[in-house]
Amino acid sequence: MIKVGIIGSTGYAGGELVRLLLQRENVEIKWYGSRSYIGQDYASVYANMFQLVDENCMDDNMKELAGLVDVVFTATPQGLCASLVDEEILSKVKVIDLSADFRIRDVGVYEQWYKLKHASPQFIGEAVYGLPEVNRELVKSARLIANPGCFPTCSFLTVYPLVKEGLIDPNTLIIDAKSGTSGAGRGAKVDSLYCEVNENIKAYGVGVHRHTPEIEEQLSYAAGKPVTVSFTPHLVPMNRGILVTAYASLTGNASEEELRAAYEKYYQKEYFVRLLKPGVVPQTRWVEGSNFADVNFKLDPRTNRVVMMGAIDNMVKGAAGQAIQNMNLMFGLAEHTGLRQVPMFP
Amino acid sequence: MIKVGIIGSTGYAGGELVRLLLQRENVEIKWYGSRSYIGQDYASVYANMFQLVDENCMDDNMKELAGLVDVVFTATPQGLCASLVDEEILSKVKVIDLSADFRIRDVGVYEQWYKLKHASPQFIGEAVYGLPEVNRELVKSARLIANPGCFPTCSFLTVYPLVKEGLIDPNTLIIDAKSGTSGAGRGAKVDSLYCEVNENIKAYGVGVHRHTPEIEEQLSYAAGKPVTVSFTPHLVPMNRGILVTAYASLTGNASEEELRAAYEKYYQKEYFVRLLKPGVVPQTRWVEGSNFADVNFKLDPRTNRVVMMGAIDNMVKGAAGQAIQNMNLMFGLAEHTGLRQVPMFP
Amino acid sequence: MIKVGIIGSTGYAGGELVRLLLQRENVEIKWYGSRSYIGQDYASVYANMFQLVDENCMDDNMKELAGLVDVVFTATPQGLCASLVDEEILSKVKVIDLSADFRIRDVGVYEQWYKLKHASPQFIGEAVYGLPEVNRELVKSARLIANPGCFPTCSFLTVYPLVKEGLIDPNTLIIDAKSGTSGAGRGAKVDSLYCEVNENIKAYGVGVHRHTPEIEEQLSYAAGKPVTVSFTPHLVPMNRGILVTAYASLTGNASEEELRAAYEKYYQKEYFVRLLKPGVVPQTRWVEGSNFADVNFKLDPRTNRVVMMGAIDNMVKGAAGQAIQNMNLMFGLAEHTGLRQVPMFP
Amino acid sequence: MIKVGIIGSTGYAGGELVRLLLQRENVEIKWYGSRSYIGQDYASVYANMFQLVDENCMDDNMKELAGLVDVVFTATPQGLCASLVDEEILSKVKVIDLSADFRIRDVGVYEQWYKLKHASPQFIGEAVYGLPEVNRELVKSARLIANPGCFPTCSFLTVYPLVKEGLIDPNTLIIDAKSGTSGAGRGAKVDSLYCEVNENIKAYGVGVHRHTPEIEEQLSYAAGKPVTVSFTPHLVPMNRGILVTAYASLTGNASEEELRAAYEKYYQKEYFVRLLKPGVVPQTRWVEGSNFADVNFKLDPRTNRVVMMGAIDNMVKGAAGQAIQNMNLMFGLAEHTGLRQVPMFP
Repeated sequence: MIKVGIIGSTGYAGGELVRLLLQRENVEIKWYGSRSYIGQDYASVYANMFQLVDENCMDDNMKELAGLVDVVFTATPQGLCASLVDEEILSKVKVIDLSADFRIRDVGVYEQWYKLKHASPQFIGEAVYGLPEVNRELVKSARLIANPGCFPTCSFLTVYPLVKEGLIDPNTLIIDAKSGTSGAGRGAKVDSLYCEVNENIKAYGVGVHRHTPEIEEQLSYAAGKPVTVSFTPHLVPMNRGILVTAYASLTGNASEEELRAAYEKYYQKEYFVRLLKPGVVPQTRWVEGSNFADVNFKLDPRTNRVVMMGAIDNMVKGAAGQAIQNMNLMFGLAEHTGLRQVPMFP
Repeated sequence: MIKVGIIGSTGYAGGELVRLLLQRENVEIKWYGSRSYIGQDYASVYANMFQLVDENCMDDNMKELAGLVDVVFTATPQGLCASLVDEEILSKVKVIDLSADFRIRDVGVYEQWYKLKHASPQFIGEAVYGLPEVNRELVKSARLIANPGCFPTCSFLTVYPLVKEGLIDPNTLIIDAKSGTSGAGRGAKVDSLYCEVNENIKAYGVGVHRHTPEIEEQLSYAAGKPVTVSFTPHLVPMNRGILVTAYASLTGNASEEELRAAYEKYYQKEYFVRLLKPGVVPQTRWVEGSNFADVNFKLDPRTNRVVMMGAIDNMVKGAAGQAIQNMNLMFGLAEHTGLRQVPMFP
Repeated sequence: MIKVGIIGSTGYAGGELVRLLLQRENVEIKWYGSRSYIGQDYASVYANMFQLVDENCMDDNMKELAGLVDVVFTATPQGLCASLVDEEILSKVKVIDLSADFRIRDVGVYEQWYKLKHASPQFIGEAVYGLPEVNRELVKSARLIANPGCFPTCSFLTVYPLVKEGLIDPNTLIIDAKSGTSGAGRGAKVDSLYCEVNENIKAYGVGVHRHTPEIEEQLSYAAGKPVTVSFTPHLVPMNRGILVTAYASLTGNASEEELRAAYEKYYQKEYFVRLLKPGVVPQTRWVEGSNFADVNFKLDPRTNRVVMMGAIDNMVKGAAGQAIQNMNLMFGLAEHTGLRQVPMFP
Repeated sequence: MIKVGIIGSTGYAGGELVRLLLQRENVEIKWYGSRSYIGQDYASVYANMFQLVDENCMDDNMKELAGLVDVVFTATPQGLCASLVDEEILSKVKVIDLSADFRIRDVGVYEQWYKLKHASPQFIGEAVYGLPEVNRELVKSARLIANPGCFPTCSFLTVYPLVKEGLIDPNTLIIDAKSGTSGAGRGAKVDSLYCEVNENIKAYGVGVHRHTPEIEEQLSYAAGKPVTVSFTPHLVPMNRGILVTAYASLTGNASEEELRAAYEKYYQKEYFVRLLKPGVVPQTRWVEGSNFADVNFKLDPRTNRVVMMGAIDNMVKGAAGQAIQNMNLMFGLAEHTGLRQVPMFP
């Protein structure tokens, strides 16, 4: 039995962790942390859990929690996880952080983009960037996981094989991303109101979105050299889903078949990454509720560019699902344990 | 291993059967019937199933199918199931019909409301109306199940305890129902286009909707006398979900507590029916993707009426989920086997 | 030139007043009141007005305003308008109040349902309930208009002819209303977030919604006796629109034709109320952006009830449009001046 | 009085022409052409027009029509307009074609991308590409207008000043466009059903969309040299609106201010193009229902690229509104006559 604690269990990502973990055999959620709802019935906050969860919300006392559980998920605002961990805690409990605190290797870059002082830079080095498709072996033995951001997960998986194989010039990469509104969180903001989001689409964070350095860092590892990209997210009137449309110039004259071979090389054995058939475009509805990432590409001979597309559910592969995928690896379970939900359509 | 055949597997309800059955242990889908897509790759029709289903669509040859599988689900237009079954087939295979063919005991009423000649009236008598919360024992031994309609399921579960206990006058019942658009099916009709449904709400089938006699018949059994109700469905711009708001006059002076006691009497032990706490209203989002029916009520002393509310996912408890609940009972399994999906929110 | 002031111009109804008044000849908006945005550029709050409105937001100084303009619209929370008016102000400027402060004749009923002490009960008597289809002549000479609520407008227009003609028993009336989300206002609340409203429908204020006494009072005038109704609003995932489905028992044996004749009697000459052809249901999309109220009914001989349906745009006929309709009448203009927008579809 | 005929009046763009022309002084719609609904009451097809339009739908007899009206709008599938015009007709009536038939100068390019034989290549040369912001003077004296496509209108207006001034390299242009679903038309297709579009986003026509050569041709005129771009449209779950996000590399080292000056040079005097303030992003909701195009840009010094953004209502500036803007010019009216609708929000 894996005993689990969740700090930040009443945010959308926290609620998704509960949804995915709740009826698993061999997993027990022992701690529903939520600073905003301490003492309240969890199921009164998320009524989908009525009669499924009987617990009340707890504070974020990591020390106490570390003595109770095997793994802690922190689905909290930036900076909180870094302020809660120390050597004693990490020696007692595995931590999977869904915030950005340990995703960026260079603490200066983190502090510049996030406008925060990092509280635990000493653990950045050991934290593993929890993208199992790339860092599977490292994840297995990690005690601290930096769970990737939603946009970086989708962006990276969409372009990775062609960058890794040197088939596209990574510095020509333009990543145009579209996200459902759950990515904006459950905070009560005018900009997230139904009437403001419905019947609307807009870009946001143009040129300054904080997922940019995370995408660039991971692409740099794949390319073996520094990479700078244009990244622009958009807010789409739907609850879930991220679609990435990425554009890059070929480095040479790779054919459609050679490009496809690169994708197959990296994804053929991956359960959660589905390379679609030629001509089929990724759509968020086909992955909704699941941990799948659907990817495909189209070579455009007119421009010598390739258009790469990827779709994930931002709440699952972009957050809670990937965190559980990491947990499975850390506890020696089959990677897809409890994560084989068929996407829900319509 | 229960071997399953689905006729009509490419409609929305058929797709939902596949979603719910696909990764169950001890269940194997052997036949993806779809008259419209014979020979085509099922996953090309429902791309959420890509790499999960490898089969092609088959015709609706019930005879052949009956030799291959243990149970057949018919998720087909009215009249088809009745035209496919005969004694030989029913002696070989269990049939769970998601259409209305065997829901109405009086064939004349069926033919009048459905404007169809019934092809197998001889089986109406033995067919069991598959609402396990009422007919559980009959379901277990049935060979032909009339799986209830989506509106009747939600309407009935919402008002049943008060009708059964005689606390409301069933002939004062007004059932105002609101449904997501998946209930209209996957047929290409102008009225179901995105731009026609989005930013719109309308009633339809006012006074003539075919679920009316089904609701009345089941309520008549509960009331022990003939019941006539007003039933008006509405089309709501969302994919899934049915909300029923039902109004009726009290027969006496029952208090809030007495009404609640009636609900508890019938639903306390039911896994799938959740009687919400006082003051909490059912909402479709809290049951989405699950087999739950959430119900509650409000006594209005000003009018001596009670307002009863219920919410289901029309694709699950209103169709595929309930069909599987019936299948579980017919095969001696725990009723909620494979049906404990936590509702997905947001 | 009619000079106009708006208090509460940055709420949704206030914004709609601006939209409808902005490019009218002979109307000039002189005051964009908004307590929350004093001193800010109005077009930075409603970017649709960019380059159309150059003014900054002002406070709600009614005294100063009364010296500047001919008419003040108050699109503000309950209680504010009552606290701002006095004899001096009403002697200088016409006031059209979009809140509920002067809608209820009995101050005790107001205070009970709104849980507020009324600050100006002395003006309740003279205020005219601004439903022009009923009170046209009174509106023309009023100096204080109680602009009807969105639900009461739609509910009343839907059932009025049959109540007025005594063809239905008003105490059997059940009004099931469905509203778009703009009715909840622009306040930053979790319940109004996109992800909470989208893919959901729920009832709210069951048995206690504050529009109930307003509906009952107006129906009482029509019926010539006290009327008590069941009224239940629902929140629908769309921006605009209210649909009312109302049910009542016939008092006698009126035929479909007699019922239609009653509707025609009251609405044939009304520009803004459209009695649809037999069998055509009102839909919110067909009135969106316009001041129309579409109504129709269906006699159900099985239950001896009639189902009455009506649709409006809650922002227009349910708020700003009706307020302007009243303004037109008060200033001797043709009632539909500036209000002949064709509904926008899709 | 300008007498107007519309061929294709029951498509979404045709309906929008009716909405915008209906209550204009000095304009009278004399012919509601619709091959699919000949003889039917127009208001039964578009119930928003109930009691506003009394006419029946007519066929597409251009010869007869040309004798009756001053201008014909063709809002019809590709190929139809070209098959209907001849010298006699053009000598009698002005034609504004909302299809693509006369947008592409090179008939070979047209026939290759549209897979159609052009029926009237002899008129391509004289047809004026009806983008008034660029071709205003030519429009005034034209007898045949090629009304621009929705994507080309938005794409072109978004990037035009920087291309025209040589500040960006047009061959680095990547245009990522997002469209509401009305752009897909009113045809009954599974892909346009509510449940297929809702909660989904996808790219379509990747690398092969037919608006590509139109965009390239117009950009070539601006750049003074051949231009090839990457253009990818996406389908967004909303009724109306197009957002374009365009990326290009600077040719030199232009500053934010210099880029802004270029936009101001071309758009300062344009009523319908609104250059937003620095840092404000275009959003489709702020132009909905109006003929505005909102544009802005962001210089990204990290990549030496500029991100250009533009938003229009695809039904108005992207179709019917722009057609009327052209009509106004052709008949010597102020360009914004009847087109000053304030965008509707929410």
